[in-house]
Amino acid sequence: MDVVTLGETMVAMRADGLLRLGTTARVSVAGAESTVAVGLSRLGHRVRWAGRVGRDEPGALVVRTLRAEEVDTSTVREDDAPTGLVLFEQRLPDVTRVQYYRAGSAGSRLGPDDVVSALDGGTRLVHLSGITPALSTTAWEAVVAACDRAAEIGSAISFDVNFRSRLWSAEDAARVLTPLARRATVVVGSPDELALVGGVSDLLRHGVAEVVTKRGAEGASVTTPDGTWHAPAHEVSVVDSVGAGDAFTAGYLSGWLDGLDLAERLARGTACGAFAVATRGDWEGLPTRAELDLIGSSRGTALR
Amino acid sequence: MDVVTLGETMVAMRADGLLRLGTTARVSVAGAESTVAVGLSRLGHRVRWAGRVGRDEPGALVVRTLRAEEVDTSTVREDDAPTGLVLFEQRLPDVTRVQYYRAGSAGSRLGPDDVVSALDGGTRLVHLSGITPALSTTAWEAVVAACDRAAEIGSAISFDVNFRSRLWSAEDAARVLTPLARRATVVVGSPDELALVGGVSDLLRHGVAEVVTKRGAEGASVTTPDGTWHAPAHEVSVVDSVGAGDAFTAGYLSGWLDGLDLAERLARGTACGAFAVATRGDWEGLPTRAELDLIGSSRGTALR
Amino acid sequence: MDVVTLGETMVAMRADGLLRLGTTARVSVAGAESTVAVGLSRLGHRVRWAGRVGRDEPGALVVRTLRAEEVDTSTVREDDAPTGLVLFEQRLPDVTRVQYYRAGSAGSRLGPDDVVSALDGGTRLVHLSGITPALSTTAWEAVVAACDRAAEIGSAISFDVNFRSRLWSAEDAARVLTPLARRATVVVGSPDELALVGGVSDLLRHGVAEVVTKRGAEGASVTTPDGTWHAPAHEVSVVDSVGAGDAFTAGYLSGWLDGLDLAERLARGTACGAFAVATRGDWEGLPTRAELDLIGSSRGTALR
Amino acid sequence: MDVVTLGETMVAMRADGLLRLGTTARVSVAGAESTVAVGLSRLGHRVRWAGRVGRDEPGALVVRTLRAEEVDTSTVREDDAPTGLVLFEQRLPDVTRVQYYRAGSAGSRLGPDDVVSALDGGTRLVHLSGITPALSTTAWEAVVAACDRAAEIGSAISFDVNFRSRLWSAEDAARVLTPLARRATVVVGSPDELALVGGVSDLLRHGVAEVVTKRGAEGASVTTPDGTWHAPAHEVSVVDSVGAGDAFTAGYLSGWLDGLDLAERLARGTACGAFAVATRGDWEGLPTRAELDLIGSSRGTALR
Amino acid sequence: MDVVTLGETMVAMRADGLLRLGTTARVSVAGAESTVAVGLSRLGHRVRWAGRVGRDEPGALVVRTLRAEEVDTSTVREDDAPTGLVLFEQRLPDVTRVQYYRAGSAGSRLGPDDVVSALDGGTRLVHLSGITPALSTTAWEAVVAACDRAAEIGSAISFDVNFRSRLWSAEDAARVLTPLARRATVVVGSPDELALVGGVSDLLRHGVAEVVTKRGAEGASVTTPDGTWHAPAHEVSVVDSVGAGDAFTAGYLSGWLDGLDLAERLARGTACGAFAVATRGDWEGLPTRAELDLIGSSRGTALR
Amino acid sequence: MDVVTLGETMVAMRADGLLRLGTTARVSVAGAESTVAVGLSRLGHRVRWAGRVGRDEPGALVVRTLRAEEVDTSTVREDDAPTGLVLFEQRLPDVTRVQYYRAGSAGSRLGPDDVVSALDGGTRLVHLSGITPALSTTAWEAVVAACDRAAEIGSAISFDVNFRSRLWSAEDAARVLTPLARRATVVVGSPDELALVGGVSDLLRHGVAEVVTKRGAEGASVTTPDGTWHAPAHEVSVVDSVGAGDAFTAGYLSGWLDGLDLAERLARGTACGAFAVATRGDWEGLPTRAELDLIGSSRGTALR
Repeated sequence: MDVVTLGETMVAMRADGLLRLGTTARVSVAGAESTVAVGLSRLGHRVRWAGRVGRDEPGALVVRTLRAEEVDTSTVREDDAPTGLVLFEQRLPDVTRVQYYRAGSAGSRLGPDDVVSALDGGTRLVHLSGITPALSTTAWEAVVAACDRAAEIGSAISFDVNFRSRLWSAEDAARVLTPLARRATVVVGSPDELALVGGVSDLLRHGVAEVVTKRGAEGASVTTPDGTWHAPAHEVSVVDSVGAGDAFTAGYLSGWLDGLDLAERLARGTACGAFAVATRGDWEGLPTRAELDLIGSSRGTALR
Repeated sequence: MDVVTLGETMVAMRADGLLRLGTTARVSVAGAESTVAVGLSRLGHRVRWAGRVGRDEPGALVVRTLRAEEVDTSTVREDDAPTGLVLFEQRLPDVTRVQYYRAGSAGSRLGPDDVVSALDGGTRLVHLSGITPALSTTAWEAVVAACDRAAEIGSAISFDVNFRSRLWSAEDAARVLTPLARRATVVVGSPDELALVGGVSDLLRHGVAEVVTKRGAEGASVTTPDGTWHAPAHEVSVVDSVGAGDAFTAGYLSGWLDGLDLAERLARGTACGAFAVATRGDWEGLPTRAELDLIGSSRGTALR
Repeated sequence: MDVVTLGETMVAMRADGLLRLGTTARVSVAGAESTVAVGLSRLGHRVRWAGRVGRDEPGALVVRTLRAEEVDTSTVREDDAPTGLVLFEQRLPDVTRVQYYRAGSAGSRLGPDDVVSALDGGTRLVHLSGITPALSTTAWEAVVAACDRAAEIGSAISFDVNFRSRLWSAEDAARVLTPLARRATVVVGSPDELALVGGVSDLLRHGVAEVVTKRGAEGASVTTPDGTWHAPAHEVSVVDSVGAGDAFTAGYLSGWLDGLDLAERLARGTACGAFAVATRGDWEGLPTRAELDLIGSSRGTALR
Repeated sequence: MDVVTLGETMVAMRADGLLRLGTTARVSVAGAESTVAVGLSRLGHRVRWAGRVGRDEPGALVVRTLRAEEVDTSTVREDDAPTGLVLFEQRLPDVTRVQYYRAGSAGSRLGPDDVVSALDGGTRLVHLSGITPALSTTAWEAVVAACDRAAEIGSAISFDVNFRSRLWSAEDAARVLTPLARRATVVVGSPDELALVGGVSDLLRHGVAEVVTKRGAEGASVTTPDGTWHAPAHEVSVVDSVGAGDAFTAGYLSGWLDGLDLAERLARGTACGAFAVATRGDWEGLPTRAELDLIGSSRGTALR
Repeated sequence: MDVVTLGETMVAMRADGLLRLGTTARVSVAGAESTVAVGLSRLGHRVRWAGRVGRDEPGALVVRTLRAEEVDTSTVREDDAPTGLVLFEQRLPDVTRVQYYRAGSAGSRLGPDDVVSALDGGTRLVHLSGITPALSTTAWEAVVAACDRAAEIGSAISFDVNFRSRLWSAEDAARVLTPLARRATVVVGSPDELALVGGVSDLLRHGVAEVVTKRGAEGASVTTPDGTWHAPAHEVSVVDSVGAGDAFTAGYLSGWLDGLDLAERLARGTACGAFAVATRGDWEGLPTRAELDLIGSSRGTALR
Repeated sequence: MDVVTLGETMVAMRADGLLRLGTTARVSVAGAESTVAVGLSRLGHRVRWAGRVGRDEPGALVVRTLRAEEVDTSTVREDDAPTGLVLFEQRLPDVTRVQYYRAGSAGSRLGPDDVVSALDGGTRLVHLSGITPALSTTAWEAVVAACDRAAEIGSAISFDVNFRSRLWSAEDAARVLTPLARRATVVVGSPDELALVGGVSDLLRHGVAEVVTKRGAEGASVTTPDGTWHAPAHEVSVVDSVGAGDAFTAGYLSGWLDGLDLAERLARGTACGAFAVATRGDWEGLPTRAELDLIGSSRGTALR
């Protein structure tokens, strides 16, 4: 595998109208890490997603979807608990409400042993997010075990802070996520999220090689000990902005895997983000490698 | 109020196709007692539904729906826990799979104090089901409190056994539900469910006035100390059989409230059941009083 | 033209669910005579439909639809009044509720002069229905004018009683429709409708050549001075029975135009009825001549 | 009641595509005054809507919808005439065509006696619109009766000019609406509409306390004897602009009821208008009080 | 006929989502020349479309659709080969992927004899496009025959270059289309397409009277020996830009038929283009003459 | 692999209504052999499907779908030709019209070398159908090569006659398919199809071990040198009968792989057929092993 990632993927119900009025909904799947996995797979990388799903139809949907996208699910485990569910309602064009039904879910029962079976010697990159440690104690332990195992097998770590206020407080998140972030080669987050784990300078000081700041419509930048590079966002009609951050991360990491320079990594990230924003769904519109050209690519530029 | 009922009503997602393939779903509400409440309200009775919903959009949908149906929701309470959710998938024309997301839900946090505010002196009938005691200890206590309060204010009790194997074991259900059933004036259930609470004879021996047996496509019967009456089911094209039992109960209780004789109560019950079976959704197709005539009515007949 | 027919065609909204719950609807057109016209056109006859539509989008839909079906609309007139509208709700599989918004509609403003322009020398058959005289005084006059003009140009008349209780009383209908029916060569109706215009024997006595009785699921029969022939209905899964009577009429008249014998006319009528019943919509599923074979055809048999 | 309003609410069919091509439609309800009522109810005020509906399913939909929204419908009367219907077609993103089927409708049969039962002593505000007097003579009389009754019980009057050219001429409207507008405390309208009833200065001279000018994308202003205040519109992606004016009115009147200052009233109005514009439907997307914050609020400013 | 046009019209499946995910699609028809025909017909001109369709349901859809739009199809022939099919997928808001299933289609079997029957003395204008010669040798011959016949009967020719890289190479297209373009009175194309057939000056030198350049969002211009006129595009929200070029052509040619001056022809063309862009589908949203006013019209201006 | 199968899988468009009226369609995939592959995979067998798809989105859909269903696609090749397409229209409940767009498709370019890479030593069963040899000469050669290779590696062959009159004549089919059928261990077909390849007795005489006759609603039977066993079909509401034959084959072969006796093989076959008939789509509703119990299973019985 080029990349192994782990986390929780849920069945997602996206309301077409307002929930309180009764409406229809589309059934799909959602999960930050699996969105990254799909993004990387479409770009031609070999990716595994590890996690647990319920022994139920939503769980079958999660596994079928990832398998369809050529994401390796051979180490996914079925659990007696139900697959988590997330309800999305777009209240206003730029306000999406999210309601989770994931307490006690199969996905939250992820543990260190799930990780052992998923990571093997050939793994170049382990991708983790700050959502998983918030799910349960065992899930947190799984993330720690993944970091340990990555060190052992010489795999790099990418870490997307992904702070979710619905799951825990900023204080708890800061305490748990900061030490995890410091173990990563690449840390990705919004300005607020990066502040939560100590800030760009602090992360670099603790040995992180690349700190990537996602700025939404303002684009993205990456800071290394050598300087900062910036790439603007593509101008696209916004159809659905959910998942754009994970799409960016997939593009950036794809550039990392391909050995592109920093400006090109950012450019691939913003291209992927643009695809996500311009299509419905979290992962559905992510580009294949051949499709990357459909969106005008703009190489990032060094700020200093 | 003519009738007060209490229980949990959830947001219901009905998949249009198979969940594992990704599909669309319709968003509505579902709950055994609220289906009975809607049925009674459409037939012209004044009904209150008591329960808890989350401070969320699914909760707003539950309350809006019941209010639209002229069911009194003035004592419904909002709770910090989320509104429960139920996922329906019609796997085969006669096999519907149900998955609950109701553990720890607002509805399961119903307690005795919710009951006190909901039942007042004018209540002629308190309708309870065997689902509520399975939800939580406080919900069980609420049902017990409702029985106590009904006795106090001189209100009759109707009890639908409604055993749900997804929520608890038959043993636990039997232990909890039998004493509740014995306090009722009218007990309703399938043959299996009635056996679970001691059987028809035993219930009559403990003072239940009418034991009503729902037999699906075979119709329904009622046994009193004076004998047994039977009514066949109407022949209708089956569109969606979910909710037919609750629809029958609503029709039967409407007949009880109107002082119809036993055969007429059964006839109104099977008419309501036929409406439910012939339309999509649990409660959506229940008849108004004026619509009852649209389906050929067949008076029940005495078996002995 | 082989056939000229006249009447009112409205925009039709067919609710997909129950109206009182809010739902979606499909927009199409509906009108008894235009359904006959489409049926005849699909079977290869040259047909004209005469009538009035509003100078509005529903009117454009009516004309576009008929033109698409190769029904001649060259004498259709646009009127300042709005195109009529009809709302359908399938309350139960076999109960469809109809609500008209046609009072004062363009279609009801049909008058004798519309008829003069529509009927010319080559017309073999003028098809009329008992709906039109119920719409307005001028519409009634138009039907009378059509009978006069048919006599003048030597065209036969077919008359479908089509009594609509939403438009007038049985008494009024009997008074107005009986003299019209007596002027026809072919009269079509249900047993009740035929009774309304004097009954089979009376009609034959007044010179009607063929009296056709539509009996729904029991098939159809035709009585002439020479005897009675009967054809059973085809056994098909009922999808939507609205329009089946008009479909039968189209098939029967097609057989008349083709000079088939009476048994064969009935057979073509029941085949068309079966197509209508087995597909959604009034006219949408009517067969082309090539499609007639898709449904097993059964020749009618002489009863005596 | 904090507010009582009266008028006609119809069943609304919104075409998803172009009517002339055949399409699908969504069934909901529409009425200027009931949109205001829903808006006020969602913001937490106690509101009654008075009017007539047919004894039909569209009528049931109107009443169910308002009841769901916690609008009091206890004085609504059922009438033998059918519930009115309105057909919407969005021909171009900013051109919506409207076709009414409301001549002789139940709603147009509103009369003075409907008003007497609806307005009682506790009413703080009676909200009227210029549509109602255009429906019928009795409806006009009902509006006059409402003004008289409001004066009697000491209730303020708000009046939205709402000139509908499909219903009457500007001359007729001016003649009828000007004396009504002069009796109001708050008059709302577009610049053209306000000119129709004499203009801002004239209205103030006749004792109107606040004249509110709705300027669509340019925002809104209010003029009192003390000066003029203005608030810009919110910048939102336009999804459906129908109903935005009524939404604004609801927000403004909510501010009036809450005793906000003029600038804050305008700000609440423009916020509600923004919600309406950014969601599909007339009333469906109106905000609850808690949701007001989802849209950046901008306090109006004094122009002089 | 005012105009006769010929070409291939296919059944069109427009995916609602991404094809690779499984989705739904809308079934309609598509063809450059038939879009022009519909556009002209809606503007009140008498138009014939000549071509071949399969003896199948897609073929019936093509003919029904054109007939509905009052386009004359009396010379259309049915062929044993299947009706062609085209699959559209909107990958990004401004990237639509097209896949043809038209090799060996009925439409590609068009030949010179189809043309002879379609063009008669009264034809003022023959409209041709550069797609047809790419379909097959006989189709090319049909276009040549149409030019010959037009000369014979004194009809003008309009030619839309419409280069389709999916069908042939630029070299082949240039060789075949240049001589055809030179025979036209009006040639229409994008700057690239006009270059392919020799460029504006060269065309004028060869006797073309008006060379019209379509520039998408930049509007359009026309060059004659007397100078160049330009009209900007209307600013509209882009819903679906497919078909906008053909819509423009229809508008321009309508102006030509009406004898408008060059600036007015451009203005009518850009108005039609704006309607096409602002509605879904190729031809569905084209304006009737009465609707032209719905979009602000802007007369073109002379550049020199 | 337990089973390797090969053939053509196309993108399938299923019209929701009648094509000639314009309608919507659902996009999925269809192919006899891939339906068998999905059926076997859901029942827990390891299956590979070999074939070619275009380098296009329909091809991506085919591969994604099979991969989702855990069918091995590692030897599928992309071809420059387009993926074939099939259009389904349900004209009457029991009449589905099929139109192919597969001439020259990628799938028809299957050749012997595709087979060599797909079959390896561990393959227990090679499943072939009579459709493939009808697609092209190379596809026929591929089937012959598969038989040769199966003999070489000691794998059994199952052969479903699957005669498609749209692709070739009965005479051609008989000539080509008979020698292929004789090489199989298991031959499956309708009575007509089996007659086409020589009949049951002749096949047994040529060494076929089991000849399975599919009789639709009458069930199925299997004849071996030892006798004939029969199993009735399950009684289910027919939703969509397309694909039921392939579903039966999958069930039967699953029983063969599991070493069930002949009666049990038939029983599993009819159970799978019942699932197919009771759900929409060809393969979508096939059962997992756990779901087999949802339909009452009926063991076949020996006829002699």
